[in-house]
Amino acid sequence: MRDAYQEQMAALNKALGDMVDEVGAAMAQATQALLEGDLELAEEVISNHDSVAEKSAEAEDQAFQLLALQAPVAGDLRSVVSGFQLVSEIDRMGALALHVAKVARRRHPAKVLPDEVAGYFEEMGRLAVELAQNARRVLENQDYHDALTLMDDDDAMDDLHRHLFTVMMDREWSHGVAAAVDVTLLGRYYERFADHAVLIARRVVFQATGKTPEQLLEAS
Amino acid sequence: MRDAYQEQMAALNKALGDMVDEVGAAMAQATQALLEGDLELAEEVISNHDSVAEKSAEAEDQAFQLLALQAPVAGDLRSVVSGFQLVSEIDRMGALALHVAKVARRRHPAKVLPDEVAGYFEEMGRLAVELAQNARRVLENQDYHDALTLMDDDDAMDDLHRHLFTVMMDREWSHGVAAAVDVTLLGRYYERFADHAVLIARRVVFQATGKTPEQLLEAS
Repeated sequence: MRDAYQEQMAALNKALGDMVDEVGAAMAQATQALLEGDLELAEEVISNHDSVAEKSAEAEDQAFQLLALQAPVAGDLRSVVSGFQLVSEIDRMGALALHVAKVARRRHPAKVLPDEVAGYFEEMGRLAVELAQNARRVLENQDYHDALTLMDDDDAMDDLHRHLFTVMMDREWSHGVAAAVDVTLLGRYYERFADHAVLIARRVVFQATGKTPEQLLEAS
Repeated sequence: MRDAYQEQMAALNKALGDMVDEVGAAMAQATQALLEGDLELAEEVISNHDSVAEKSAEAEDQAFQLLALQAPVAGDLRSVVSGFQLVSEIDRMGALALHVAKVARRRHPAKVLPDEVAGYFEEMGRLAVELAQNARRVLENQDYHDALTLMDDDDAMDDLHRHLFTVMMDREWSHGVAAAVDVTLLGRYYERFADHAVLIARRVVFQATGKTPEQLLEAS
């Protein structure tokens, strides 16, 4: 029974890891579409989005099967419940990549980003993809030491996000309100994407130890 | 066994309903703080926020107890799992009310909102609170007909949100980029708050019928 549980739980975490991979790739493409004004790429992200929703439904089914057939208890039960919560996080990451692609499409053939903030988004995109890759890794290896290091990557994203506002608030900002609105929303999408990646790591810490990162650091 | 399940599930839905009530009240206060530049009220929302986090943890514990002690199956199992997902939605609504309060505090004693958009936020705030009240009601009565009507209230919020952008994009906008950035973020907070309220109603439809709203409407 416990072997079957272990096997199915590993399969669920693998499926979740694949989903994270997919939303990370979507964010990479959406960022490229945004930076290069590439309409085709934006369309690709948008039309691929349904696949994330399908995989979410499949992963939820897998988790229900696990609950129903293996009737896990204690820590195992918490791990399966985490699985449902992880599906929601990853789903949301996919929606945020979709939002970025939609902004790129809406403004095409105009470029969305003034030159002076393009570099920020290149870096935010790079960080977002890196965070997704890290989230995938800890989902699969269930290594909570590794998961704890993910918390810091989010700080870098928050710094970039803050700097972005400083640039827009500068008197020298000459791109008008419409560009500022786009940049504000886009900045928020990247920041939220990173936030969800960190929440994934938090849940892995909890799955692996039964403790939140704070409880764990307090005890050490 | 089933009686105990019913009783505990009703208690869980009641606890979730109370949480929705609390985040709705927080959004009402945050909106008032925003519109009136009321620092004290903003501070109150901010310092009350911990109570939402505490109640989330308690509701998750209740749901775990239910799973562990009653070992529900089939539809009952889905209802309990929904409970965990509902906690995340409500938690997020609380975070969004907190964000609104923080914007009000950050700009104090300056007013955040130019007069020409204040009316939009008054209405978005009113809608947000109404949506929260409706979400609370359907959580407690588990009436899926009622839950289905909630989907439309969200459209009104989306309309307001779109109009808000039109106002900012207008050549006549004379309040500069900083105000536009604030208004953009605030608009997004209200829109997301409404979105989560609708997601609550969707989950109630699923809890009560085992079908998504789309599946249900297709079948009818």
